[in-house]
Amino acid sequence: MHDFDFYNPTHIKFGRNTENEIGTILANDQIKKVLITFGLGSIKRTGLLDKVITSLEQSGIEYVEFEGIKPNPIISTANEGKDLAIKEQVEAILAVGGGSVIDSSKAIAAAAKSGIDIYDFYRGIAIETALPLYTILTLSATGSEMNNGFVLTNEKTREKFGTGSIFTSPKVSILNPELTFSVPKDQTAYGAVDTISHAIEPYFTKTNSVMFLEGYIENICFSVTRNVKIALTDPTDYNARAELMWASTMALNGLNKLGAKDFCFPSHMIEHSLSALYDIAHGAGLAIILPAWLKYFRNEKAPQIKQFAKAVFNVDDSQDGIKALENWLTDINAPIRLSDVGIPADDIEKIAENAFRLSSFWGMEKTYNQNRIVEILSLAI
Amino acid sequence: MHDFDFYNPTHIKFGRNTENEIGTILANDQIKKVLITFGLGSIKRTGLLDKVITSLEQSGIEYVEFEGIKPNPIISTANEGKDLAIKEQVEAILAVGGGSVIDSSKAIAAAAKSGIDIYDFYRGIAIETALPLYTILTLSATGSEMNNGFVLTNEKTREKFGTGSIFTSPKVSILNPELTFSVPKDQTAYGAVDTISHAIEPYFTKTNSVMFLEGYIENICFSVTRNVKIALTDPTDYNARAELMWASTMALNGLNKLGAKDFCFPSHMIEHSLSALYDIAHGAGLAIILPAWLKYFRNEKAPQIKQFAKAVFNVDDSQDGIKALENWLTDINAPIRLSDVGIPADDIEKIAENAFRLSSFWGMEKTYNQNRIVEILSLAI
Repeated sequence: MHDFDFYNPTHIKFGRNTENEIGTILANDQIKKVLITFGLGSIKRTGLLDKVITSLEQSGIEYVEFEGIKPNPIISTANEGKDLAIKEQVEAILAVGGGSVIDSSKAIAAAAKSGIDIYDFYRGIAIETALPLYTILTLSATGSEMNNGFVLTNEKTREKFGTGSIFTSPKVSILNPELTFSVPKDQTAYGAVDTISHAIEPYFTKTNSVMFLEGYIENICFSVTRNVKIALTDPTDYNARAELMWASTMALNGLNKLGAKDFCFPSHMIEHSLSALYDIAHGAGLAIILPAWLKYFRNEKAPQIKQFAKAVFNVDDSQDGIKALENWLTDINAPIRLSDVGIPADDIEKIAENAFRLSSFWGMEKTYNQNRIVEILSLAI
Repeated sequence: MHDFDFYNPTHIKFGRNTENEIGTILANDQIKKVLITFGLGSIKRTGLLDKVITSLEQSGIEYVEFEGIKPNPIISTANEGKDLAIKEQVEAILAVGGGSVIDSSKAIAAAAKSGIDIYDFYRGIAIETALPLYTILTLSATGSEMNNGFVLTNEKTREKFGTGSIFTSPKVSILNPELTFSVPKDQTAYGAVDTISHAIEPYFTKTNSVMFLEGYIENICFSVTRNVKIALTDPTDYNARAELMWASTMALNGLNKLGAKDFCFPSHMIEHSLSALYDIAHGAGLAIILPAWLKYFRNEKAPQIKQFAKAVFNVDDSQDGIKALENWLTDINAPIRLSDVGIPADDIEKIAENAFRLSSFWGMEKTYNQNRIVEILSLAI
């Protein structure tokens, strides 16, 4: 087992109606004024925003709204949020949404407290302080609710990548599975793909055996592959939504890589170029890259693929395991080829060039040259 | 999935030589003087105490030693530690040992800061402050290194039970598997039994299905049942010791029960009476109670026992699963009958009376009357 350091101080409140506790939580932390950040307005339609505001008002907490964070969030929007947070002198950020909203809010929290332009965090400026961040999760996917990383796109350069520090860990995250009942089928499926992907990237790329970790990851995938089908059939199945929500949190809170040596996230690296260049959903991009990556490494990683295939899909052969993964993706209506989302095969060189440009940021500049990325993408045609 | 609240702020540093970082860790936290607590001197013989002191001295940290915490630790010893901590005006406690040392140190940390007699914590006085606690773990078993509970025996009444609060969570715990190379075979085995037991008590007693949790627990048991055999054959197998260490931490850090409804720890409750009355090792007592508990509930819990048996021992039948657990216990030289540790069958009523006296503390006064405890113990003759 490889050495590791684990520290995750996010407080999770999981269950029905937990969003109504937000006013009390903030009041207990002596917060008097908060910036509520959210996306394109679904929380207005579902009534969640009203519930949050009622809870804040009952605890006498002032609030300012920052609306309009888009999927594949961009730095300039987060900088607008930062300006508003500074102008309004809020003491905390309350993110109500999925990964895009929470990631942007981490950037806002760090930038508002330090006054640093968010572009600079991506130029290597360390994050050494941040306003306290609270989240109310509405989508099971990114795990951002219990880690400190945030991924934004630089809309000028079309580069999508992440940063973070312990200061951008959410202080409290509220997880009510009911808040995901209204998530559309495609986003439900893509969230499941994102979860699986966070879990299996360290699993397949590590260079050592770690029995506990392998079982931990297989368990996430076992649960997600089954529960997403239940949630797609009945979007209001509380238990299935709860299993998906907790699995997505546990898939990227640090536990998913403890003891692993030399692991990396190649599918994420390549996918970020798809969503940065074509603005497709992150989970959709991952569904295309994951099988291609496995096919590329089908010989080198055969024993691990075989173990995964047995544990998650109950098939005995590594080739059948890759096929079972593709079948599962197809079953949940996720794309598995570039053409499924309208990306022409001719673009592969351009995508690989974009991905390779950020490979040193991912620590993969030596193992994933542009050629290798092209070869992997070629298996997704 | 049942509602839950999860907050675990202990920072884990896992790996070889991590004990040498303790001076730097304390210095970074502005600690100038620390109480080193430990057991019966094995850390002197192994050289660990010297290493710890060297690390402290290199960082200019003063220290006082408190030696002599015994297995099945008693309140009066912890109160002596408290008096020394107050007299010496230490700013933190550094526990170097296994669960007995860490549990006692939690009590010392809370009592030294508040001035409260430790007996009073067991009479219902809330723990609302504590000195910061740091631990260097030397035994894989109790999980105390990443939770806030502490179990002590009231030597006057022969009552053994636990308390705790968020203030008694270790701030940093250092986990170096090499420090367990010298653990004797019996303690290695008992530690594995304790770990399994922490994991399966919520698993078998909960009244709802939680797919993620069940897989999480089965994974702990799968890893521990295999790795303990490797460690018993080769006590210096780093990987096996590491798997046991991390599994024991993950088996009682809160994650082992998330989403479970109406769970309880009956085997622990009954075992505490064995170790309080006969001073046997906690893990030995659990090895006796666990199969008896499963036999008592073999019909009511048959589906869950069957699932466990398949996942952990790869047998298809619940009865065979109980037998497989007994075989595993026997393989690692753990006792499985009261007579194996010299407890006469005639004492069962007395043991049950002691256990039932504390049942309300465990929240089991309605489900485990004295008669039921007698019946369970009768299956361990």
